[in-house]
Amino acid sequence: MDKTLMAAALGATPADLAITNGRVVNVYSKEIYPGGVAVSGTNIVAVGDVDYCIGENTEVINAQGRLILPGFIDGHIHPESANLSIGAFADIVLRHGTTTVMADMHEVGVVAGLEAIEAVLEEGKQTDLKIYFVVPSHVPFSPGLETSGGLFDSKTIEQALSREDAVGLSEIVGPYLLSGDEELGKAIDSAKKMGKSLQGHLPEMKGPAMNACMAAGVSTDHESLGTEDAIERIRAGAHLMMREGSAARNLSECLKAITEEGLDPGTSSIVTDDLHTIDAVDRGHLDDSLRTAVKSGIDFVTAVQMVTLNAARAFNLDREIGSLAPGRRADILLAEGTNESFHVDTVISDGRIAVKEGKSLRPYTKTSHAPVLLNTVKLQKEVVPEDFMIRVPQESGTARVQLMRTLDWIPITYGEEVTLPVQDGVVRADLEQDALYIAQVERYGKNGNVGKAFMGGFNLKSGAIASSIGHDNHNIIVLGTHFEDMALAVNRLAEIQGGQIVVDQGKVLKEVPLPILGLLSDLPAEELSAEKKELVRHVHELGSKIPIPFMFLSFICLAAIPEYAVTDRGFIDVMKQKIIDPILELSS
Amino acid sequence: MDKTLMAAALGATPADLAITNGRVVNVYSKEIYPGGVAVSGTNIVAVGDVDYCIGENTEVINAQGRLILPGFIDGHIHPESANLSIGAFADIVLRHGTTTVMADMHEVGVVAGLEAIEAVLEEGKQTDLKIYFVVPSHVPFSPGLETSGGLFDSKTIEQALSREDAVGLSEIVGPYLLSGDEELGKAIDSAKKMGKSLQGHLPEMKGPAMNACMAAGVSTDHESLGTEDAIERIRAGAHLMMREGSAARNLSECLKAITEEGLDPGTSSIVTDDLHTIDAVDRGHLDDSLRTAVKSGIDFVTAVQMVTLNAARAFNLDREIGSLAPGRRADILLAEGTNESFHVDTVISDGRIAVKEGKSLRPYTKTSHAPVLLNTVKLQKEVVPEDFMIRVPQESGTARVQLMRTLDWIPITYGEEVTLPVQDGVVRADLEQDALYIAQVERYGKNGNVGKAFMGGFNLKSGAIASSIGHDNHNIIVLGTHFEDMALAVNRLAEIQGGQIVVDQGKVLKEVPLPILGLLSDLPAEELSAEKKELVRHVHELGSKIPIPFMFLSFICLAAIPEYAVTDRGFIDVMKQKIIDPILELSS
Repeated sequence: MDKTLMAAALGATPADLAITNGRVVNVYSKEIYPGGVAVSGTNIVAVGDVDYCIGENTEVINAQGRLILPGFIDGHIHPESANLSIGAFADIVLRHGTTTVMADMHEVGVVAGLEAIEAVLEEGKQTDLKIYFVVPSHVPFSPGLETSGGLFDSKTIEQALSREDAVGLSEIVGPYLLSGDEELGKAIDSAKKMGKSLQGHLPEMKGPAMNACMAAGVSTDHESLGTEDAIERIRAGAHLMMREGSAARNLSECLKAITEEGLDPGTSSIVTDDLHTIDAVDRGHLDDSLRTAVKSGIDFVTAVQMVTLNAARAFNLDREIGSLAPGRRADILLAEGTNESFHVDTVISDGRIAVKEGKSLRPYTKTSHAPVLLNTVKLQKEVVPEDFMIRVPQESGTARVQLMRTLDWIPITYGEEVTLPVQDGVVRADLEQDALYIAQVERYGKNGNVGKAFMGGFNLKSGAIASSIGHDNHNIIVLGTHFEDMALAVNRLAEIQGGQIVVDQGKVLKEVPLPILGLLSDLPAEELSAEKKELVRHVHELGSKIPIPFMFLSFICLAAIPEYAVTDRGFIDVMKQKIIDPILELSS
Repeated sequence: MDKTLMAAALGATPADLAITNGRVVNVYSKEIYPGGVAVSGTNIVAVGDVDYCIGENTEVINAQGRLILPGFIDGHIHPESANLSIGAFADIVLRHGTTTVMADMHEVGVVAGLEAIEAVLEEGKQTDLKIYFVVPSHVPFSPGLETSGGLFDSKTIEQALSREDAVGLSEIVGPYLLSGDEELGKAIDSAKKMGKSLQGHLPEMKGPAMNACMAAGVSTDHESLGTEDAIERIRAGAHLMMREGSAARNLSECLKAITEEGLDPGTSSIVTDDLHTIDAVDRGHLDDSLRTAVKSGIDFVTAVQMVTLNAARAFNLDREIGSLAPGRRADILLAEGTNESFHVDTVISDGRIAVKEGKSLRPYTKTSHAPVLLNTVKLQKEVVPEDFMIRVPQESGTARVQLMRTLDWIPITYGEEVTLPVQDGVVRADLEQDALYIAQVERYGKNGNVGKAFMGGFNLKSGAIASSIGHDNHNIIVLGTHFEDMALAVNRLAEIQGGQIVVDQGKVLKEVPLPILGLLSDLPAEELSAEKKELVRHVHELGSKIPIPFMFLSFICLAAIPEYAVTDRGFIDVMKQKIIDPILELSS
């Protein structure tokens, strides 16, 4: 029994901090009313009338009529998607009102295992952001089809789940669950035994398949692409995480389940999933999603519930976070605007002011990193242009090739048969047809694999681009018009310990180092955003029209997204889950 | 991972039971739509379209358009208030649609300790009712002022809380919590450590006091007497248990917080607290409360949420019970009427049909009881009329006496100074002034105490009434006009091992045995209800106008309800928490 807290709540001892003269947003009663919030240590002790809590040494913040609301909670996010160190990530999301995230860091895990995730979580403790851990359930994603650094077998998962900050098993993929995957089954049993939640990734699941996932104990899903999906999930008793993120903006469509179909919003929250650096800087985080929600016709307090209380409830954490109430963690925002003009200016996290007038009081500065997070890019040998050549047993003529071409608006590839020239026994790219070389180079020092294929949709007229972010195995993926530029790009990335790069005609046009795990930068968000914009500008100058070319590039190696992929092991037919030869037929 | 369940949900194996052609009440989406429910074993596997689940051996129930809803959950009830064995209690509440209760059995505990509660819970497992255990936090209630049988110190409480069916610490009384009671503090710490909820009893708490209780971690309250209280609790983040029970009907007033003030109902549920036999038989249980709620202006599905999902959420049990969804326990009702005509006709509990067309399929029959539950009434010696006399050191004259008089409509006593005759050195009752003898006789064989006082409000013109139900110590309380009738009443109760009795002029007019702990009958509900009506008829014939005289009588010994009480230790000034002499002054 916390007597200190009770004494402060009673007014027997003065509060440490009191916000007065504000408009309290009460997510329980669903009201906004005049009042304040009093804090003792790291907890709220009173809400509403708090004058009695104020003593001589109480720090008083006059809210001057501003809204007082609970700090925002993101129930599903991959912090690596921002390519920031966890300190820089925390800094920027806090400035946008987020005080808690449930982080799935499977990318960190893919590169360097649980030890690396734990090192990042440890760095996270130095920030003002509360980070809960949702444990990746499936690393590597396609074990037979790619090489990865870390491995999450059921033992590792059990170890990870036993952490106090672990609140669930993450990304439980519907089809894997239904197929009776043994390792996944063990992981699920561990999670259940430990009372941790089962977080679902259930795209297009409905009817019997959805029922089976729910019967297995999955309690949430964030793969709802539209209104019908949303309705299905709410009705099935799944907590619906409406996703509004850089890679997928499903919020407006999902919200129609509430605004048009009249469903109860009580089991819906808003999550991000992926948050790219540029979006974090230019748009924001859950504050931006809240504006989007209100613009879509949700009333303001309901939208606030969806980024606070409802999110907390999905993890049974609602007695700790997600509301302004005595006993809760003192995560408090001061903000203005109950509509599309909503913006946060002050953020209190764990009872300490973290952001004031939009500025961090303890702004991010580069921190040191545990060794496990560094020097993770190891080529078995430097690559040479020849490594990227697809040789055929004829000197010239043509080859009928299975090309993979990406859609313009989303990195989903479809097959296209093209005829490419053979020259000196090597099948050549054809810029006219927009058929370029693409390859993925293994970078964990394990086997030196180079998987090769042909790629359409990027429209480069010259040069090469490469990235050590390559989902989900994070080997180096490289796309180019010439083998020499491709080799330069890959070797340079290895030299700088990972990053994203644009080269042309033997010169590096722009590089963005990502020395932490080959995934993350040490720069603050605003600087990294500027660097990335510069990087993309160069890619556009080389001919590509794709607005986010590196994001697209990083998804081409995803052996789970139809219809084709390239991994370090080769060209993948995703539907058949097999490595295939891109060369279909030769003609002289 | 439950593969059997998943297979049934997928339709790969047929369901055991399917309800078809109904109207599903979905407490998540807050809709009613055509569909059914399929069950495999003890769990729901599909809701809505369930045709695919039906196989050759599936038992199909055609709902014929009836409503299909989740079984009802009572989040706070004292089953002993019905004076039935747990088997008979389960039988009647099931027939009214209740499939789960959170039972606080502190009365059982007062009489014979944790061992007795555990024996009752064991009997409960033989029924179709799911009984969770909320552990009494304060037994005996007023240790210095009464004798009780069982003791719940912090060690007993810890032991009780560790049970798998224990879901919280119960009746945490606001003032005790705020006073820093040591034993209560230890109990709370145990509960928190074990992740069990803290159930509050916070009458009239508001502002700082409410904040302090919330800060201590109390998560619910059921002592909301009206609209303002309700608003206060919802806003403070407490789960509001709106009480509609035999002893207190606060539901209509509490509901105004929602219907008139527009507050969100998401953290409100409906509980019973006390359910008297006669009310259970004549009115019902949560089905009756649901009708009351709808009549008060709450929409039907919201009212259903308040007796299902919201109640489950208060205990973090919402992934197990409280909704129709795959994975949930198969507690399902078929009912008709989305308004005041609502009534249940079929009840499925844990996948088995328990009630059909309003009748139990496995009706209650008397069961045997563990020895700890029997032979609990032990007088140290037979009482004699002299035991009830209040002697004074003068033979005649008058005595100025502090009488306690009960209000007509609720057993709250106030003080009244009266002048009573002294005869043969004994202060005498005065029927004209409605000043009767009242006493409580210790019945655990520990000390033979007899506490004595004078009582107004019952208006008996003759005879005596006695009860071995006497809150909260359950010693035998006896009220009468003549010492001889009082002695007869008490001795007879001891002879039949507890009960309630009316005697007059040396004869027993009516007795209702309560041989289980001196609190509960072996009769089925309908029979006990008839017996009690007969008992009360006799009391009315003796002059009392109080509609429920035994209920009132049983509260006169509550040393916690103002302003006065009588326990086995004597006449109690409740405000001062002291034993006092009812005789104020003597005159010759």
